[in-house]
Amino acid sequence: MDKKLVEEITSREENFTQWYTDVVLKADLISYSGIKGFTVMRPDGYAIWEQIQQHLDARFKQTGVRNVYMPMLIPESLLQKEKDHVEGFAPEVAWVTHGGQEELTERLCVRPTSETLFCDYYKDSIRSYKELPQLLNQWCSVVRWEKETRPFLRGREFLWQEGHTAHATAEEAEERTQQMLQVYADFCSEDLALPTIMGQKTEKEKFAGAKATYTIEAMMHDCRALQAGTSHNFGDGFAQAFGIQYAGKDNQLHHVHQTSWGMTTRMIGAIIMVHGDNEGLVLPPKIAPVQIVIVPVQQKKEGVMEAAESLLTALKEKLPERALRFKIDDTDRSPGFKFAEAEMRGIPLRIELGPRDIAEGQCVMVRRDTREKVTCPIAEAPERADALLSQMQKELYDRALAHLESHIEDTKDAASFEEYFKETKGFARAMWCGDRACEDKIKEDYGVTSRCIPFGQKRLSDSCVCCGKEAKHMVLWGRSY
Amino acid sequence: MDKKLVEEITSREENFTQWYTDVVLKADLISYSGIKGFTVMRPDGYAIWEQIQQHLDARFKQTGVRNVYMPMLIPESLLQKEKDHVEGFAPEVAWVTHGGQEELTERLCVRPTSETLFCDYYKDSIRSYKELPQLLNQWCSVVRWEKETRPFLRGREFLWQEGHTAHATAEEAEERTQQMLQVYADFCSEDLALPTIMGQKTEKEKFAGAKATYTIEAMMHDCRALQAGTSHNFGDGFAQAFGIQYAGKDNQLHHVHQTSWGMTTRMIGAIIMVHGDNEGLVLPPKIAPVQIVIVPVQQKKEGVMEAAESLLTALKEKLPERALRFKIDDTDRSPGFKFAEAEMRGIPLRIELGPRDIAEGQCVMVRRDTREKVTCPIAEAPERADALLSQMQKELYDRALAHLESHIEDTKDAASFEEYFKETKGFARAMWCGDRACEDKIKEDYGVTSRCIPFGQKRLSDSCVCCGKEAKHMVLWGRSY
Repeated sequence: MDKKLVEEITSREENFTQWYTDVVLKADLISYSGIKGFTVMRPDGYAIWEQIQQHLDARFKQTGVRNVYMPMLIPESLLQKEKDHVEGFAPEVAWVTHGGQEELTERLCVRPTSETLFCDYYKDSIRSYKELPQLLNQWCSVVRWEKETRPFLRGREFLWQEGHTAHATAEEAEERTQQMLQVYADFCSEDLALPTIMGQKTEKEKFAGAKATYTIEAMMHDCRALQAGTSHNFGDGFAQAFGIQYAGKDNQLHHVHQTSWGMTTRMIGAIIMVHGDNEGLVLPPKIAPVQIVIVPVQQKKEGVMEAAESLLTALKEKLPERALRFKIDDTDRSPGFKFAEAEMRGIPLRIELGPRDIAEGQCVMVRRDTREKVTCPIAEAPERADALLSQMQKELYDRALAHLESHIEDTKDAASFEEYFKETKGFARAMWCGDRACEDKIKEDYGVTSRCIPFGQKRLSDSCVCCGKEAKHMVLWGRSY
Repeated sequence: MDKKLVEEITSREENFTQWYTDVVLKADLISYSGIKGFTVMRPDGYAIWEQIQQHLDARFKQTGVRNVYMPMLIPESLLQKEKDHVEGFAPEVAWVTHGGQEELTERLCVRPTSETLFCDYYKDSIRSYKELPQLLNQWCSVVRWEKETRPFLRGREFLWQEGHTAHATAEEAEERTQQMLQVYADFCSEDLALPTIMGQKTEKEKFAGAKATYTIEAMMHDCRALQAGTSHNFGDGFAQAFGIQYAGKDNQLHHVHQTSWGMTTRMIGAIIMVHGDNEGLVLPPKIAPVQIVIVPVQQKKEGVMEAAESLLTALKEKLPERALRFKIDDTDRSPGFKFAEAEMRGIPLRIELGPRDIAEGQCVMVRRDTREKVTCPIAEAPERADALLSQMQKELYDRALAHLESHIEDTKDAASFEEYFKETKGFARAMWCGDRACEDKIKEDYGVTSRCIPFGQKRLSDSCVCCGKEAKHMVLWGRSY
């Protein structure tokens, strides 16, 4: 393979952080903009986000959710209506103080999240129980004035979806909160080939203004945790603060119960850090913008381009639901360069087709993840390609799950907890007393944070691994992004 | 029809402006937010935008365009790099002066349009002729601090797409500028059933920083003009200002030639004002989020809901490409209310199905635009529905074209020009000397602006209808939104 033609990336084993940055830049996903903390999502990066949007949006709509668009700016007085919420967000928002030539009488912040806007809308539009539930979502960008930034993982602006629902009862709100967490978990496992651990955030880690925050936590290749999606139950706290009431069947006024849930462009970072390797990006077939690239070899020889075109046509005809996601690389560069570039960009399947292959009625298929070569009769190419893509999707998940399972451990006491985090970088499950002080101390001592209180609690021991007092919950601990 | 149950809207003939606002609000497209000049796009409004996005995005991608995402904020120094551009936009932008707790060293504006950001990106990413053309687009929201605002037509924030391309030659840039204008015109006529007039903007009306601006102009039902989409050729002006150069085949450095083109959520306003009527919204089938609503009559009687469900299944099976855009209204309200509501929301086709119909093996189809009732055997419903939707799409266009053609006139001299605009509200074509002074005077005297210098120029007379001097161009004049 013509390695020299494709710029090399740092080895993942040598320097994971640099490897990540190299892949992001060399696979043309992002480029830095002239504005600190803001990036440009380039076509190959944005195309992945478009796939994520399509898959996730379809899953939302299946549960009855509809999309809306709220204003980008929030008046300071509106942001301040819910006490915990403003405390959590006010320190990190961008403030608009002038519109055109005039100074504004009240400053407006660029939305860091839109709970307050949805509340303002619900306050005016919900009258009766007949208008409940309200199941709304929006796709937009938000701004948070972060100090440290990293492509996809943390930026001053990022793209996301934020769902906001309003319900008649506390039970319905809780059910929806968990339903959407499940939607995220299914999307991660089925579409992104990303296993996650579901659970509840501790008081310290929950969302500003929420009664309960649920999360799915994924493990990256370097064994650090990435919070992949969160779903919040607000109870009627926001409804009390904003005065969102409905007339029930009983003709009395009641406060609504609300939820919100979000997933962001950081999922692209998760895909890179879970599936990527030393050749670059590896995209799960289901969300790969290009699933198959046909690389003609000796493309100027008679019949080669024709054979490539007719193979493309056959693929499109036999696999109509994937038809838009195949291409031929007919650019004027060497096959070796094209192979390496297709690998850098993470295209799941490459089909090589040269004069000798054509003479023998065959082509060569190469899976991106295993880089295994399979020779296949041209006539059978569509079926084989389809099977290889499905197999790759499944095996990416299996491999990620195996990685997670081999880097997670149950620790029963302080000694084994300490030993674990001295020696490894993985996740540990351990019992916790429920006190913030222990959570803070564990972070200070080991650099790990409580990722969540996992669903499916087990009683590993009776005492907190930090203070030794009576244990309340089993917590998942790990270093996080 | 149970009219009383649906709130009435102002008559379109009595007060067009109020009728428009009534439709926007009562069809649940938009609600006003608590922030002056900002609106909430509600689910039924946003669903139309999603349809517009899908159709337009597919047309862009067919021409090789790819999507990206640029930062939302622009440093003041970047905005100022192109002299005409900053003069045009600086007076109407929103300024961010604080990030978190800190005052920024340089203020940032919320993008009113992103030419400067694309230029900044192209400056760093274009090196050689091999990287040209660059055909990029983004879907986003922009902020312009307008004084007067109206739902969809003019707001302090609106959603749009903005395409930005860079080319090796002036010819290619001009070709792309016109190609995208044609894409807009085709989208309007084929998808929105909206005839438009294509032409070039005068110097006065062109985009800040452009060498030439092309436009498509549509006529609303009240005969006023709406600028539906614009496409700009920047020549190498921005490239000079930003230093965007590429190494050509000749090994010399050359400036790129650029274009930009945009279409916004105001198209939803155009759909309302061209196709709507006194019953509410009328959506062209191709972009209607719901194309067919089945209204069961006496739905609690045995067999009615079953028949409705089986009709829905048959429609989905026979018309798979439309399958997601059918629904049954099984809510607990009277059929008359449902009919009126479906009309208010502009659903193209309604199918009524009651016990008597079922006994006779038939259903009743009602087109939204003509409100004509057609009785049809249930077995033939999918084919008939499909045909009615296609027919409605075509006839909406034909009707809008007839309206445009009957309200446009060629005026050959000052007297007939004056007479025309005293008596009617339509468009007039008339000769113009090319002087800004005449353009200003005509606006002052008649309240009309130059909409464009239409393609397919004719020489209606030899002298300007304003000053009598030698004519240079035939101009389309009209009152505009």
